[in-house]
This record gives sequence, C-alpha cells and structure tokens, in this order.
Amino acid sequence: MKIAVDAMGGDNAPKAIVEGVMMAAKEYNDIEFLLYGKEDSIRKYLTDETNITIIHTDEKIASDDDPVRAVRRKKNASMVLAAQAVKDKEADALFSAGNTGALLTAGLLIIGRIKGIDRPGLLVSLPVIGTENGTFNLMDVGANADTKPENIHQYAILGSYYAQFVRGIKNPKVGLLNNGTEENKGNDVTKRAYQLLANNADINFIGNVEARELLSGAADVVVTDGFTGNAVLKTIEGTAMSMMKLIKNAVYENGTKAKLGGLLLKDSFSNMKDVMDYSKHGGAVLFGVKAPVVKTHGSTEKDAVYHTIKQIHEMLESHVIDDLVHYFEAKETLAE
Amino acid sequence: MKIAVDAMGGDNAPKAIVEGVMMAAKEYNDIEFLLYGKEDSIRKYLTDETNITIIHTDEKIASDDDPVRAVRRKKNASMVLAAQAVKDKEADALFSAGNTGALLTAGLLIIGRIKGIDRPGLLVSLPVIGTENGTFNLMDVGANADTKPENIHQYAILGSYYAQFVRGIKNPKVGLLNNGTEENKGNDVTKRAYQLLANNADINFIGNVEARELLSGAADVVVTDGFTGNAVLKTIEGTAMSMMKLIKNAVYENGTKAKLGGLLLKDSFSNMKDVMDYSKHGGAVLFGVKAPVVKTHGSTEKDAVYHTIKQIHEMLESHVIDDLVHYFEAKETLAE
Repeated sequence: MKIAVDAMGGDNAPKAIVEGVMMAAKEYNDIEFLLYGKEDSIRKYLTDETNITIIHTDEKIASDDDPVRAVRRKKNASMVLAAQAVKDKEADALFSAGNTGALLTAGLLIIGRIKGIDRPGLLVSLPVIGTENGTFNLMDVGANADTKPENIHQYAILGSYYAQFVRGIKNPKVGLLNNGTEENKGNDVTKRAYQLLANNADINFIGNVEARELLSGAADVVVTDGFTGNAVLKTIEGTAMSMMKLIKNAVYENGTKAKLGGLLLKDSFSNMKDVMDYSKHGGAVLFGVKAPVVKTHGSTEKDAVYHTIKQIHEMLESHVIDDLVHYFEAKETLAE
Repeated sequence: MKIAVDAMGGDNAPKAIVEGVMMAAKEYNDIEFLLYGKEDSIRKYLTDETNITIIHTDEKIASDDDPVRAVRRKKNASMVLAAQAVKDKEADALFSAGNTGALLTAGLLIIGRIKGIDRPGLLVSLPVIGTENGTFNLMDVGANADTKPENIHQYAILGSYYAQFVRGIKNPKVGLLNNGTEENKGNDVTKRAYQLLANNADINFIGNVEARELLSGAADVVVTDGFTGNAVLKTIEGTAMSMMKLIKNAVYENGTKAKLGGLLLKDSFSNMKDVMDYSKHGGAVLFGVKAPVVKTHGSTEKDAVYHTIKQIHEMLESHVIDDLVHYFEAKETLAE
C-alpha cells in the first residue's frame, strides 16, 4: 500500500511529519510513503529512506489560506499534489496535518465522494473512560456546519463500518446525539434523523444518547450534525485541559503536603493524561470520500503522526472503503 | 420579597427543598417563602417556620409527566399553584427542582414573556477555571431546540443584563459560540446571528468564541442555540465527571504509593470538585419571562437549594427583570 503524505502541513512540519513517517516505515514494511514537499527541508530530518520517496515541490498551503481558493490555485502545493496522487491511483491514502478546510476541499474536489454519500463528514475516535483502550466514534465533528437528516443517516452507516472494520467492534451500537433520550426529543433535524435511523435495519440503532454519557461509552458510534459535533469535541478538549490545570494547581498551590502527594501520584497522573490524549487512536478521518484522507492536529508531534499512519494502515488493510462502495452500489441496484 | 417554592419537585423533595429553604430563610430575613405542597410531608422537615408559609396541595407534577399536558390539566399541582401565585403578584419569583419541561411551560404559559422577547431561554453560570469564583454565563442551554438568529440576539441582551446586574460584571463581553473564531465561520443561524450581534451597540460583542475556550473565560456571556448549548453543558458535566473518575482510579488502582499520594491531596481534590460544582452559583434561570423562574437539578440537595434562593434574591434585589422590561419598552417606543 502507498500513502501520500503532505510533508509541509502543520506547525511542526516537516520535522514532526518526517520523523513520524520514519517511525511508521520501520514498523510497517508493507507501506510505501510518498512525501510531498521541499526536498532539502525534508532531507534535513530524513535519516532512513527505506520505503520513502520524496516528490519535491516548493509550493504549500498555509494555515490561514482560504481553503477553496488555495486548493484551486496552488496546483503544486504539497497537499494538492498528494491528493492528486490518490486520485491518479499512484497512492491509496492521503495524510496531512495542514489546513483542515483545504484538506476537506482537496478530499472532496480532487479525490471525490463515494457514490451514494452526499456529504462526507469528519470522524474521530475518542476514549471510553474506564475501559482499556476502548473508543467510541464521533461523526461529524465539523466538516459540514449545516446538516440534513439524510447526512446524519449516512454518517451512521459510515460510522458503523468504521467501528466494525477499523476498531473491531462487532455490531456497533449507533446513538444519535440529542437533548434527551426519549424518541420525541430534539430539534427538527434530529427528530427526522431519528426516523431514518430507526428504519434502517443495516445499523444497530440504540436511540438517542446525551452528551453527558459519551465518554462513558453510551454508544460505539455517535452521530450528529457537524456544528454540534464540533462544539462537543472542543468542549471535551477544553474541559479535560481545564481539569488537568486544576490538578496541577491542586498539587502546586497547596503547600508541601500536596506537592509530596503529587510526586507520589506522578506516574498515575501521566497515565491519566495518556487516557485523554485521543491522538493515539489516530487523526480525524474525512470519511465518505473514495480513499482514506486523514488529518491530525496542526500542532501534532511525531507520535501522533505515527499513530495516524497506523490508523490509515488499518483502514487500507480492512478494505473498509471498498466495502462501503459496494454497500452503496448494492443499495442503488436494489433501488433501480 | 416573596418566593413561591414548588416544595414537591425533584428526587429529594420535599426534604432537600424544605431544608434548603430554612437555610436561606435564616440568612435572608427580607424573603418570605410560600411553600406549595403536601402539608404533612413538608412539616416532617420544617423545624423553623420563620418567614415560611405552607400552602397545602395534594397534587404534583411527576418527572415523567408530559410537560404541556401536566401544566394544563393539573391545575392544583404544587408547581402550577406556585407559578399562579407569581402571575397574581402574590409572589415575586418561582423556584422548582421538578420537571424541567413543565417549569418552562409554566413560566411561559402562566407567568408569561417579557414584551419584546420571543423565546425565553435557559441561562446557567459556569466556573471560569483558574479564577477565584469567576463565572461565565451560557444561554440557551436547552429551552429551545430550534432557534432563529433573532433569538440568539435576544439571549445576548438578556445575558448581558444578567452578567452585569446579578454577577456584577461591568460591560460584560458577549461571545457567540461558533465552530471557528473568524467572522465568516458557522452555520446558517450563527452567521446571521453574528451580524445582528455586531450591529447592536448596546452589547459588548467580542465575536465568535470556540467551545475549547469557554472554561478559560473567553467571554462573560456566551450565546448559542438551545440544542448546541444543551450538548455543551452536558459535555462539560460528562467530561468533568469522567476526569474525577480517572483521578479516583489513579489513586486507588496504582498501589500503596498512589494511595498515600491521594491521602495527601485529599483536601486539594475536594476543592477541585467544589470548583467544578456549578450549583453553588445557583440554578438554571428561565430568562425572558416576567419574573425570576429558576430550576435546579432534580437530584439537588439542600445546599444547591440554598444557593439558588441566594441567586433569586440577587435577581430580585438588582431589579434586573424590571430593567429588562424597560429596555424593551424603550426600544419599542423608539421603533414606533
């Protein structure tokens, strides 16, 4: 399998990207990497070229570039060339830590949607607290700000495939994020989405779930519109960050006794931080396009790059996208 | 001032309600309490009747009653009688820990909206982490699942008054919850709400804020539609709960050393829990109706009842609602 890598995307590019790719290349010798970016900048960090090819380009998309315009005009940007390679079947998947909007645009305009999917969405895997490495999958976390019930229905199918094929969850439970658990709860969009989900026998729909229960594992796949999903994801991040700050204050601003307590709990606290760091489950997948397109945080370090490559490897190995393509083709044939 | 209390609402009623009211009655001798509910049940816990009058009724609204139907049909329910007392000017404010939907309905149908407000919303005050008792005010956290830009604009005016009069924040910063900070970000509703907020010189609009920054105090008043606000509030609660669970595990599941560390940090951790417990700032206000109507969690204990009475006292003492009524009247006169 071949992965096209935008080596110039993100705050720590190309260093973090190159180092993370080398980590992954060492572990997965069935992957060939195509690194798009400035050759001399990349070479500065590339100490082992096994399975790695550089495709030089001077152009790149900046984090504050207008996404659609940048993808249309910067034909030789590292991200655009990497996406083009996927479209041309020279690569099987696209990875970037760059401008999110531009990556969504490149995914949609260059690589293209799976037939049957109206709006690909962003999917992330988040920890289920109290389990050993358990995750739930939240979709959409921000690809589409305005969402129709049918989009949410499609997220449920996509998310189910992802949970099953990539996360190994059998018959994954699908929940609709809502403002109450009763069937009649919600806004206009969720009320109509509920009916679509309840009437689709191909998914294991368990009904509405509330945001309070997400991290406790209320469902394996939680679907919502991209505006709410974005707010929920960022609220989880912000609250976790604030709580870590509170712990720090609890240890450092309460005298010697507390400091000693903190010292004794150092390892436990670092485990705790690790639990909340969801980048170890990979990046955000633009799911619903014809190939794996995966994004990590702009501030990503090499470990997160490595974990994201691992995630892409799992997506390719499981053929989850091929299976989705067949699912929607079969549905279309039935409908004809 | 007189507060009408639904003594029968919530899981711990009437015990928690009566005990909390007695705590408040001891501190605020300018408040008279009207307790609506089953007299003998209330008397079981009422050890001091100073400033407290019981109005007996056998009927009450259950937590699973259909809100609108219950308010319409159960004419003698404790909550309905308490709301009626406010409408009839026998009381100045309404407190309940009962069925949220029913309280919203009673507030809207019995007490009625302030002229100029289309949709009253629910406002809560949440902690700003890293400050001494600092809060920000989030509105709407769930009164209206479907929201128009003009509703959000009204929340901004209401929230500004609340932050200023009740929380003592001068020239409070108003932020619009959005999926990015740039002006052009958002869904259809937030894009249009942005323009309304930016064009209102009566509020200190600072632009879009992201959910990640809420607990860091990005704004004093954060406005959003009731669906997203509900999800954000419940996500904060759920994440904080999960993090407290992680701390507990960190202490109890990592051997003697960690247990000792936990012992040394016991007081600090209990402070931390206290910071996150936002019930000490009072309950959720149904803001935009003609009198203070305030709700606490169904599982509320006497302390939360006491804090909510304190909050209602501040609302009444500051005349925030009278001032809002005048503001909207003046606007109407100008528009004529």
